[in-house]
Amino acid sequence: MPRILLRIAYDGTEYSGFQRQIETPRTIAGTVARAVTAATGEKDIEVSGASRTDAGVHALSNYAWFDTTSRIPPEKFSYVLNSKLPEDIRVIESRKVADDFTTRHLHFVKTYEYHIHNAEFPDPLQRRYAWFMHTDLDIASMSDAAQHIVGEKDFRSFCNSKSQVLTTVRTLLSAEVICTAEKMPRDITIRVRGTGFLYNMVRIIVGTLVEVGSGRLMPDDIDTIIGKKDRSVAGPTAPPQGLVLADMKIVVDTPETPGL
Amino acid sequence: MPRILLRIAYDGTEYSGFQRQIETPRTIAGTVARAVTAATGEKDIEVSGASRTDAGVHALSNYAWFDTTSRIPPEKFSYVLNSKLPEDIRVIESRKVADDFTTRHLHFVKTYEYHIHNAEFPDPLQRRYAWFMHTDLDIASMSDAAQHIVGEKDFRSFCNSKSQVLTTVRTLLSAEVICTAEKMPRDITIRVRGTGFLYNMVRIIVGTLVEVGSGRLMPDDIDTIIGKKDRSVAGPTAPPQGLVLADMKIVVDTPETPGL
Repeated sequence: MPRILLRIAYDGTEYSGFQRQIETPRTIAGTVARAVTAATGEKDIEVSGASRTDAGVHALSNYAWFDTTSRIPPEKFSYVLNSKLPEDIRVIESRKVADDFTTRHLHFVKTYEYHIHNAEFPDPLQRRYAWFMHTDLDIASMSDAAQHIVGEKDFRSFCNSKSQVLTTVRTLLSAEVICTAEKMPRDITIRVRGTGFLYNMVRIIVGTLVEVGSGRLMPDDIDTIIGKKDRSVAGPTAPPQGLVLADMKIVVDTPETPGL
Repeated sequence: MPRILLRIAYDGTEYSGFQRQIETPRTIAGTVARAVTAATGEKDIEVSGASRTDAGVHALSNYAWFDTTSRIPPEKFSYVLNSKLPEDIRVIESRKVADDFTTRHLHFVKTYEYHIHNAEFPDPLQRRYAWFMHTDLDIASMSDAAQHIVGEKDFRSFCNSKSQVLTTVRTLLSAEVICTAEKMPRDITIRVRGTGFLYNMVRIIVGTLVEVGSGRLMPDDIDTIIGKKDRSVAGPTAPPQGLVLADMKIVVDTPETPGL
């Protein structure tokens, strides 16, 4: 059956994540599936995603796909689905891909951004999209620490302990700490770029960098934490609302995905 | 009765404005009043505001006050009320003022910011806080036009025609058009600073500057529009969600407000 690929952006605040194994109240995938049904009349639509973002996490560029025999032209699906979707999910573009398209055939570079509002008082306009922190963070130390996580490493210490994966080795291409001002109030963005991420990896990296920024860890401690391969030695998992999948680029166009 | 002054910040998305003459479902003032009742046990609390923002408009710094005989120390009200308020309203500080304190005794400088997301596709993370516009706007023309509205002028053309005020003369201290990038996608902020504003004035200024940015008006047309003193010759009223009362400074400490 023809397969349609969507590039989508969403505000994850009101959703219990992209997709779950068991049925959950309101997911990104389920909401897109209902919009496809409303547009095509086809029932039992299954929507798969390139990045299964967690509850409360946002995306400016994620990919989702589904099968359809509808006669809606592939590139028109973005327009048609946007008229059926709530405003917190937008389809940026749509196109036809190979019938057997899945992310296994692809290599991605993903860019995640994590936003911290570092100020004396919380900003109600940022509560859905940033982690509020009133501790004055040492940005130079955080930047220094961020360099210790760049490269091909075993990130087991930065992976949710419930995760079951064959390998916890991943490659981080870059990690930056960007700041709007020298002093509070200011907005801090932690931007990481990599070819693959473990479950909760970015949020644990952020939680650990904040430990460095608040003086409870030193930048060099990152190497020790990586070496121990133990989740309990890294920092806490930062809350979801600060995280956004900011960009996802398809870097390898393999022969298995001729439609792309 | 002792009067408490609060500096407050709020996300106006879920509210029908700061305050209305008739009873409306959910207002900023009404929500603060219920929090005061929850904190003090006092009923029939009336909350007044320095700036009565419209439905959907936000504030990073507005002032509100109420009377109380509670023994809660004035500066502790911020903490106590934040524990009773929803997360989209935050009290930044609280203090005691003169029992007859009202804004009539004061002069303010207000800074409003209006946010436009200028891009090919809407960003779901900005839908609550920006006006989405996919027309490529001419920023230089908008900046030029903005200079024509600075100064002491009769802003009748930029005032909601339902408004009844003694004079429509106001003083705009500055007007800037700030842009994150030369090309789309980009965020445009229109920042105006003044000692007083008419009903819908900032949103009509923004709607008119967008007419200039999209080429339907020339920067010099602003002088003609001001001269005509007619609401119908200015641009449309920009939607509320892009507007935020970003700052409000008390500039004159008059003898009538000894408590401040």
